[in-house]
Amino acid sequence: MDVGVVGGSGYAGGELLRLLAGHPALKVRVVAGQRTAGAELRALFPHLGLDGRVVPADPGALADCDAVFLATPHAASLGLAPALVAAGTPVLDLSGAFRLPEEVFADWYGEPHAAPALTPAVYGLPELHRDRLPGAALVAVPGCYPTAALLALAPLAGLVDPAGVVVAGLSGTSGAGSGLREDLHASHAFGNVAPYGAPRHRHTPEIEHHWGQGAPITFTPHVVPMARGLVATVTATLTADPAAVGPAFCEAYGGEPFVTVLPDGAWPATAHVRGANTAHLGVAVDLRTGRVTVACVIDNLVKGAAGQAIQAANAVLGLPEATGLPTAAVYP
Amino acid sequence: MDVGVVGGSGYAGGELLRLLAGHPALKVRVVAGQRTAGAELRALFPHLGLDGRVVPADPGALADCDAVFLATPHAASLGLAPALVAAGTPVLDLSGAFRLPEEVFADWYGEPHAAPALTPAVYGLPELHRDRLPGAALVAVPGCYPTAALLALAPLAGLVDPAGVVVAGLSGTSGAGSGLREDLHASHAFGNVAPYGAPRHRHTPEIEHHWGQGAPITFTPHVVPMARGLVATVTATLTADPAAVGPAFCEAYGGEPFVTVLPDGAWPATAHVRGANTAHLGVAVDLRTGRVTVACVIDNLVKGAAGQAIQAANAVLGLPEATGLPTAAVYP
Amino acid sequence: MDVGVVGGSGYAGGELLRLLAGHPALKVRVVAGQRTAGAELRALFPHLGLDGRVVPADPGALADCDAVFLATPHAASLGLAPALVAAGTPVLDLSGAFRLPEEVFADWYGEPHAAPALTPAVYGLPELHRDRLPGAALVAVPGCYPTAALLALAPLAGLVDPAGVVVAGLSGTSGAGSGLREDLHASHAFGNVAPYGAPRHRHTPEIEHHWGQGAPITFTPHVVPMARGLVATVTATLTADPAAVGPAFCEAYGGEPFVTVLPDGAWPATAHVRGANTAHLGVAVDLRTGRVTVACVIDNLVKGAAGQAIQAANAVLGLPEATGLPTAAVYP
Amino acid sequence: MDVGVVGGSGYAGGELLRLLAGHPALKVRVVAGQRTAGAELRALFPHLGLDGRVVPADPGALADCDAVFLATPHAASLGLAPALVAAGTPVLDLSGAFRLPEEVFADWYGEPHAAPALTPAVYGLPELHRDRLPGAALVAVPGCYPTAALLALAPLAGLVDPAGVVVAGLSGTSGAGSGLREDLHASHAFGNVAPYGAPRHRHTPEIEHHWGQGAPITFTPHVVPMARGLVATVTATLTADPAAVGPAFCEAYGGEPFVTVLPDGAWPATAHVRGANTAHLGVAVDLRTGRVTVACVIDNLVKGAAGQAIQAANAVLGLPEATGLPTAAVYP
Repeated sequence: MDVGVVGGSGYAGGELLRLLAGHPALKVRVVAGQRTAGAELRALFPHLGLDGRVVPADPGALADCDAVFLATPHAASLGLAPALVAAGTPVLDLSGAFRLPEEVFADWYGEPHAAPALTPAVYGLPELHRDRLPGAALVAVPGCYPTAALLALAPLAGLVDPAGVVVAGLSGTSGAGSGLREDLHASHAFGNVAPYGAPRHRHTPEIEHHWGQGAPITFTPHVVPMARGLVATVTATLTADPAAVGPAFCEAYGGEPFVTVLPDGAWPATAHVRGANTAHLGVAVDLRTGRVTVACVIDNLVKGAAGQAIQAANAVLGLPEATGLPTAAVYP
Repeated sequence: MDVGVVGGSGYAGGELLRLLAGHPALKVRVVAGQRTAGAELRALFPHLGLDGRVVPADPGALADCDAVFLATPHAASLGLAPALVAAGTPVLDLSGAFRLPEEVFADWYGEPHAAPALTPAVYGLPELHRDRLPGAALVAVPGCYPTAALLALAPLAGLVDPAGVVVAGLSGTSGAGSGLREDLHASHAFGNVAPYGAPRHRHTPEIEHHWGQGAPITFTPHVVPMARGLVATVTATLTADPAAVGPAFCEAYGGEPFVTVLPDGAWPATAHVRGANTAHLGVAVDLRTGRVTVACVIDNLVKGAAGQAIQAANAVLGLPEATGLPTAAVYP
Repeated sequence: MDVGVVGGSGYAGGELLRLLAGHPALKVRVVAGQRTAGAELRALFPHLGLDGRVVPADPGALADCDAVFLATPHAASLGLAPALVAAGTPVLDLSGAFRLPEEVFADWYGEPHAAPALTPAVYGLPELHRDRLPGAALVAVPGCYPTAALLALAPLAGLVDPAGVVVAGLSGTSGAGSGLREDLHASHAFGNVAPYGAPRHRHTPEIEHHWGQGAPITFTPHVVPMARGLVATVTATLTADPAAVGPAFCEAYGGEPFVTVLPDGAWPATAHVRGANTAHLGVAVDLRTGRVTVACVIDNLVKGAAGQAIQAANAVLGLPEATGLPTAAVYP
Repeated sequence: MDVGVVGGSGYAGGELLRLLAGHPALKVRVVAGQRTAGAELRALFPHLGLDGRVVPADPGALADCDAVFLATPHAASLGLAPALVAAGTPVLDLSGAFRLPEEVFADWYGEPHAAPALTPAVYGLPELHRDRLPGAALVAVPGCYPTAALLALAPLAGLVDPAGVVVAGLSGTSGAGSGLREDLHASHAFGNVAPYGAPRHRHTPEIEHHWGQGAPITFTPHVVPMARGLVATVTATLTADPAAVGPAFCEAYGGEPFVTVLPDGAWPATAHVRGANTAHLGVAVDLRTGRVTVACVIDNLVKGAAGQAIQAANAVLGLPEATGLPTAAVYP
């Protein structure tokens, strides 16, 4: 099957091309972009060794694909998705355009939603929403932090008090994109850790909405000195038997090819998922405080973006969900 | 005045020597150590350019000093401090030996306290316990995480619900000491972030005890890929008027030479305190959730260890508290 | 075909397992080790998600394999290779045991060679020695620095003065292995660069011998603060027409799937080959000085170790040389 | 004495302010800048904790100072220095404006020199040109690479063949300044090493001219993944008795407060000079090749820029040369 990738100049676009180069069933037919139209792929992505050029991001050029990945800013996705959906081309959108209900989007993005009939789209976190993916017209691929936070939170539904949930996020700089910014200058970033964006980071309502427990959470992201890798550390107060926590995680993820729940007492490390579509979780029940802490690590560009998009595309297109996705990480 | 430094082979010992080299009133008369006795300072600390050798850590050799810094593991501090205190030599202990009440120590360290009459000693966080320092016989210099967490928490006393406080910690690797360990291997640590130690990290009861609000907190530390720097990010539920938060921080730290509260909406960065005895705080009240988030950054080896020890020693010895301590950081 | 991997506890062993997991024709039948015999692969390599256990490194258990990779220290390779070769099992040795003539080995390793009849083995740098690989009984997989230095030097043979060649090496810490050492402590390694090993690094005679121009080179390696990636920067004095340099590199590598010569004036970056079996070269002729500088970057664990071993194994076993090897790098 | 600092928004300007904050005899009276005029120092330099604002870079406002530091691009230095010199205000220029003879400057900078009567100024490398500094009107503070390369080369004059000298440079990203550039994006820079600028880096003629041996050198700089720290590794062919090398270095630097020659066989590490005005040198004579390799490490912003400027200013103004400059580094 042929696929298109739009937004080829960013990190998620490059990661889609890296992963699709090893995919046995999906072939990249077109790489499209606005700002980079005409550029050689070899110059844009010296790490990929690909031939060809970027073409303009024109729905007409994309509609013949069996699926299209939009690795574009949300404004561009809002512009492109409706025409593709209307043409019957399955769309995997990696932006925040279609992850939230219209009114929540308007509140957190500060603008009315430009395609309200399409939002919220099917939320492409296969471990939690697998049954809605086959044949979906439009998939909102989750944000990086929500992916990790929701994998940590999902098994806790019904076991913890929805009020008072705290999520600490730690992410490498690639999560902030490839644009030039003072706070992404290498000399600033080496040896530096800093919170940012709280309490109005747009991933906050995404976590709240898709956990669906009806209470606001507090989410504080921090940037850490590395290019890729992400941790979401969730703390919540138990309302159920603490002995139910372990089994809930085993049941939730026992058969999942991409999710590993570590043995009791062990915490995961982002280095162990680098470059892979995997999530590792550590779970600790603290009888002293009556709280549970769950940490989930992912590679923000793979399970947190491009890998998850391909996993969702596999499901949409009727392929085995794990097709073409690496479970072995690049370590050290 | 002459001071002694015991435990000269570790990072905190080296940092004491670096800072004392620029101190106008305190002169290092003796550097003592057990494992490194006899070694040249130049070989142990190639970055300091010091003459002299390490002598055995014998209380007799130290008692003539006007003050002694113990940058030793807690077991060594428990052995050395009683004799020095008995000899009337002020002791600044950087270990966890004397920070907790006897029974709390026993619970978290898994051993009975070997010098119960001396614990808890005066807690050497000058911004919070300044009045008890002049003339103190034994000062327990706070741990790195507790320093940052307590500076973040102290102004919140009375404004938040003591139950449900969550502290996320992020620290560079130097906080784990200079000993060789698999998880401190450079190849593992580059590009890696991981939680560790939770929920039984020994800094947990230290934060609880010295905040003194009577409720357990949840503390989850993470190691981040850099040598020094630390963030404590505190989340708590407001019980008072949200408008009281800002003034509480201004009042608490308005005149402090080492503590800066950032303007509304700004978050601190560890790079801005590297090598300095400073703490930077960012505070965000979230009306949507009714919670407050406070992040405090320090250099774990300076304000989190050696710098704070010297600040406390200045107070103990009657010197102006800021004497000899850098407020300008090494950036970038 | 079935292969065995010995020395599964190190970085090169892990990288072999990562790459072989994606190889369509080679299946890992046995992972053997001395120190780690009995350990679960899942515990040794949390990043790989593999089932099974390490078995003792017994030639009998390995001889049924179609090929065996030795990712072992040279002493272990010297012990294992003769029996495997005698049994007719092709051996790919990643250590330095069989890369040098007997007497050169003795000089630089400070010990007589324990299997002189087998050394030097076929040198497994396919781009330069492709014709000797099919059916080889024992392949000495090149060292990481020699791989990069020889790819940079080979096209210069006949164009430069063999005397006076200078090679600067820069490598991430994984090149030093996974053993615990003071200079590999994370807190020391972050933000640190240092030369090491010169002028007696064992890769020096390997570069000299396999370039084969008969003059000693000066090689100075430096460790740089990252886990993987390596640069060899070669400087030599031109004796031929400077205009011959560019075409020599085009001719040497024009059809190579893993070697890219960058456009004039461009220098390569290690980040662009991370995790891939690729080498990128930059070439600059300096008419002012009459010298040429060539920089070659590789991932020291892939093209500098495990990837190259598999590339050589493909050739030994009659598979297309590029089978199963990634050309797309993990960037950023 | 009062000094002015122009170009306060860059890394060298910030480092001047950090070091001058601890200087007992020099007080910063004015911080001037073009682009940042009017900005609060506290906002520009959150790591310094300074009061005051940047004023416009007007020679009139600066001429009353006892000395002025120009931490400006070379074009700005060319504009400001003549008026200050004419007014009799000693100038310490950290740019490349006055380091080269007029015609060499024109060749390498691609523009005629705008103030040819002033170039080359007194070259402010005190260890090599101390006698010309007292009372100097204009000092060209050396570049970072030339500082390290010249400290490594100077003792070799007369002992090596001036032809065929090769210098490998390795520098952290702060050497490239604080401007935003694709190759200084954090996500690109983490875990990345790359040569750059060769063979036309402007520090090349500076090394050649100030070594003064009349032969071209080959200089290849590399960027390494850290914010500060620099190595220059020099290789040259011996023409004198190899036994003369060690004594030459001892004699050259035996009494220098900022230069340490390491024991035989030891190589220096940039981490050991971080934040300090020190240079560490390792020297290895290789009898096998007849060559000598010398590596010199410095902090590019201290001994390679701001610290050296202050060291030179001390000499110009008649203060003890080491006044106010740290010899203890921030390690780890």
